[in-house]
Amino acid sequence: MLENISSQKIKKMSLPQLSALCEEARQKIISTVFKNGGHLSSNLGTVELTVALHRVFDFPEDKVVFDVGHQCYTHKLLSGRGDKFDTIRKKNGLSGFPKREESEYDCYNTGHAGTSVSAALGIAKARDLAKKDYNVIAVIGDGSFNNGLIYEAFNSLRLLNTRILVILNDNGMSISPTVGSMHEYLEILSENTEQKAKRDKHAKIFERFGFKYDGVYDGNNISKMVEKLTEVKERLKTESVILHVVTKKGKGYEFCEENPEATHGISVSNSDKISVEYSSVLGETLTKIADSDSKIVAVTAAMTSNLGLGEFFGKFPERSVDVGICEEHATILCAAMAAEGLKPYYAVYSTFLQRSFDEIIIDICSQKLPVTICIDRAGISGADGETHQGVFDLSFLSPIPNLTIAVPKDVEEFREMLEFSKDFGAPLAIRYPREGKRVFKHKSKITAGKWEILQNGGQCAVIACGERAVTLALAAAQILEGDGIKIKVINARFVKPLDSEMLGGLDEKYLVTVEDNMLIGGLGAMINNYFSDREKIIKNFAYDDSFICHGGIDELMTEHGVSCGAIVEYIKNAVR
Amino acid sequence: MLENISSQKIKKMSLPQLSALCEEARQKIISTVFKNGGHLSSNLGTVELTVALHRVFDFPEDKVVFDVGHQCYTHKLLSGRGDKFDTIRKKNGLSGFPKREESEYDCYNTGHAGTSVSAALGIAKARDLAKKDYNVIAVIGDGSFNNGLIYEAFNSLRLLNTRILVILNDNGMSISPTVGSMHEYLEILSENTEQKAKRDKHAKIFERFGFKYDGVYDGNNISKMVEKLTEVKERLKTESVILHVVTKKGKGYEFCEENPEATHGISVSNSDKISVEYSSVLGETLTKIADSDSKIVAVTAAMTSNLGLGEFFGKFPERSVDVGICEEHATILCAAMAAEGLKPYYAVYSTFLQRSFDEIIIDICSQKLPVTICIDRAGISGADGETHQGVFDLSFLSPIPNLTIAVPKDVEEFREMLEFSKDFGAPLAIRYPREGKRVFKHKSKITAGKWEILQNGGQCAVIACGERAVTLALAAAQILEGDGIKIKVINARFVKPLDSEMLGGLDEKYLVTVEDNMLIGGLGAMINNYFSDREKIIKNFAYDDSFICHGGIDELMTEHGVSCGAIVEYIKNAVR
Repeated sequence: MLENISSQKIKKMSLPQLSALCEEARQKIISTVFKNGGHLSSNLGTVELTVALHRVFDFPEDKVVFDVGHQCYTHKLLSGRGDKFDTIRKKNGLSGFPKREESEYDCYNTGHAGTSVSAALGIAKARDLAKKDYNVIAVIGDGSFNNGLIYEAFNSLRLLNTRILVILNDNGMSISPTVGSMHEYLEILSENTEQKAKRDKHAKIFERFGFKYDGVYDGNNISKMVEKLTEVKERLKTESVILHVVTKKGKGYEFCEENPEATHGISVSNSDKISVEYSSVLGETLTKIADSDSKIVAVTAAMTSNLGLGEFFGKFPERSVDVGICEEHATILCAAMAAEGLKPYYAVYSTFLQRSFDEIIIDICSQKLPVTICIDRAGISGADGETHQGVFDLSFLSPIPNLTIAVPKDVEEFREMLEFSKDFGAPLAIRYPREGKRVFKHKSKITAGKWEILQNGGQCAVIACGERAVTLALAAAQILEGDGIKIKVINARFVKPLDSEMLGGLDEKYLVTVEDNMLIGGLGAMINNYFSDREKIIKNFAYDDSFICHGGIDELMTEHGVSCGAIVEYIKNAVR
Repeated sequence: MLENISSQKIKKMSLPQLSALCEEARQKIISTVFKNGGHLSSNLGTVELTVALHRVFDFPEDKVVFDVGHQCYTHKLLSGRGDKFDTIRKKNGLSGFPKREESEYDCYNTGHAGTSVSAALGIAKARDLAKKDYNVIAVIGDGSFNNGLIYEAFNSLRLLNTRILVILNDNGMSISPTVGSMHEYLEILSENTEQKAKRDKHAKIFERFGFKYDGVYDGNNISKMVEKLTEVKERLKTESVILHVVTKKGKGYEFCEENPEATHGISVSNSDKISVEYSSVLGETLTKIADSDSKIVAVTAAMTSNLGLGEFFGKFPERSVDVGICEEHATILCAAMAAEGLKPYYAVYSTFLQRSFDEIIIDICSQKLPVTICIDRAGISGADGETHQGVFDLSFLSPIPNLTIAVPKDVEEFREMLEFSKDFGAPLAIRYPREGKRVFKHKSKITAGKWEILQNGGQCAVIACGERAVTLALAAAQILEGDGIKIKVINARFVKPLDSEMLGGLDEKYLVTVEDNMLIGGLGAMINNYFSDREKIIKNFAYDDSFICHGGIDELMTEHGVSCGAIVEYIKNAVR
């Protein structure tokens, strides 16, 4: 039925046909995700909800904003993109997230948690000003519902004087199980499904903010979903509604239902290439050093095990905090614990650390507090696309005074840096990609702001930071050596402070910088600043000034300006 | 009584003595703020609250975190800093905000809204781990209470399994009057003071999150404050409490009581020097262009009139939104309205825009939506110190693809840029300081990414952006001309994109950049990137890599590396 499906056809289907459509969508998602990788369990949980939305509402006239957006696969299947669904998350294929540029059925791009209600309000406000009357819907998971943006948006519903539908897709999970009092409250609401009066009393919180509360506590039942949405659609003419829909994450695929955290995002990887994940090194090392240092605490925002901290949390429950998807709050908690003498480690994905920018400046760095920020998934992260690339961190962190920024060249150096961090006593950020694919033979003691020379040479010096860039630099050096060109390769393992002693001693006229970050504001830019008033010729290999969409890591790096071939080519031309 | 006041003395005072102490503190604050500038009405409102805290609790063993921190003056007077109070907000004097480095009575530095509850939780968690039992208190205004951080912090109280006291200082104002449903809810609570049962029913929201609610609805009554805090202190042994204290902003100073918005922050300025505030130009121009363009909407986060938008909001209420202190939400609202065809203008102080960093990337720029961000108080803002300097914006904005960054050289150019922005059709940021002190005679049509030459010359080119930097550059040029050195002066009115045509045509070997921003990531760094592989000698005048404390704007600029003298000196040595 999926083939040539359309909103018109869905509207004419019988309930058994709708059920069959759900089943077909579910199978399509399972088979595709197992080929392409992607978000499995969140999409399986929302099949019925999405089919019902398409049955009841009139897209694209009506607008739906998917929070985070990783649960939009069924929506893509139903909105004219079924024939391209096999290309999802592949370069030039469909994105795994909503994209305005891909379809008029996607009205607003998402990627980070908690933005959907604000966006729905903005769209509704624009609708009101245009004197139109379409419906605006935000679909948000209970994990995202922990984010402070929700409160800010709810708090302004009345003052915006508009109407929206918020569908709270409650599956009890973000990437990790959902935590916090709001989640406990949602549980109370869904437990009282048969006692309407009691439930209504409990639902007062939402009414304070101007929402009427209603619920479907069996949200994988297509019939109930269609019935309730039909009813709600009528009510939307005069009021805003929050519809609490309880679904089962991973519905219809047994392994997922039992392992929703492990199957939130699946990567397709050629296992030959994997050596070790940086996150396991974080978990292992931090657990080890915490054994002998009771001041060490670990904080995460809803992705404990993805960050490698499952064992730490199990072993030191008192010294572990997962605050839910609240990156700002997590950052301040760390600063305040450090102010009282603890040594907090805040582990987070690079892209989500963007939410903590202000707090890193004000709370951590202006107070010079010894918080270590462990930045995972730094650099290009690949198939999730624009909203998930970790390519801005060096740029936004480097202007912040009092912050030391470390970039290990491999997992072994990462381990050393963690040992080093324990007694560092000042704000420290360590950034690293997901996978460690190579361990280099060079080793030297970690000292803040001190680099190491990996290979000596004369005509040109290549300064690189991080595993991917160091790998490219050494590969380029090897190729050039075959051509009789000997170059120096430097591991710039601290992007801040720069190793000014080493930089000052560089005799080479030609310098090349390589990094897995935007050119503007990154390692290369820092080095350009250092040499601005000297006559060096510096070529920066870093990402060009554009957003980086989804695709394979290597192909995206090359496309955006960072590849071994380009480095070799440049140096050959420069030194001859 | 203020002289040689101590916690011990306060604890022995009779109620009439405490009242007299409050009165003395109030007079001291009024007289000092009228000399030094500073936050008047918020401090007048919290005198009794603070005296009562010192009476009942044992600082510095007990810890108090002041949200934003602008209401800490009485606390400073009572904690051994009375003799230096005359120096407040002066360079090398007391800060107008809490500072750990200033006193052990200040346990956590604040400056931006909403961080106090998170910080109190972090401190309490550290206390628990150290098995100590002191009290931890957050004092937060109802304006800050709108920020999403509060929800994130409340949501994690139970999972942190700790105890804190939150004092909600409700005066109905942030800088602008407080808005939103939470504020309406607080009003309901404070209206039901005599009907305890009814009030308790209403207070259920806080209990959901693990707080017991209590209130003092006459928070400028020292006797009631002492009584209630004494009672609450006992309860804190076993539970967390939110104490709703209703106070009068500006209490005790009639003009303030009647004009709390106008007197939130007062500047001492030599009136000869003032010509016009950029904010008035924003208000006037935006109101004018909105007259003929119904797609223009304006959004602010709790400081409408400080941003010059009072008239606009009055004239176009439907097209105006003040969301309260919710910078992230405001940013997304703008993006979503732009996605539906509107032309939103988001006006905000530079320092607070740091909160929107992630949303500028994801919501506005990755979708390439035509939002204009009007960044007020950019550059050094002066007496408020570290947490309020607007010196990072060029650094954090420049790495973001699809964003154009404009920096007008004077209020007239700002006006032109606003006209230009109307049909620009893509993300645009315009940054400017508070005061316009000079209008330059040069004028030329605004084109994105095109600079203008203000003065021709041969030996050296100075590239400057923004009124302060352009002023310094032209002053330096004049001085140098007296010495027979002729330099070129360029107004780099777009920091992104750079005017590569003009840069490419520069024959001067020596270039100088001047800006009112950090060196790392600013205009100079962008130009260093441009010339990295060419043999130019570039000297950057921008702020060094340190936090900029409170003081006068000119003295701070000089101290951190940006002054006419330094530019003249450098160029003299360079070109000779």
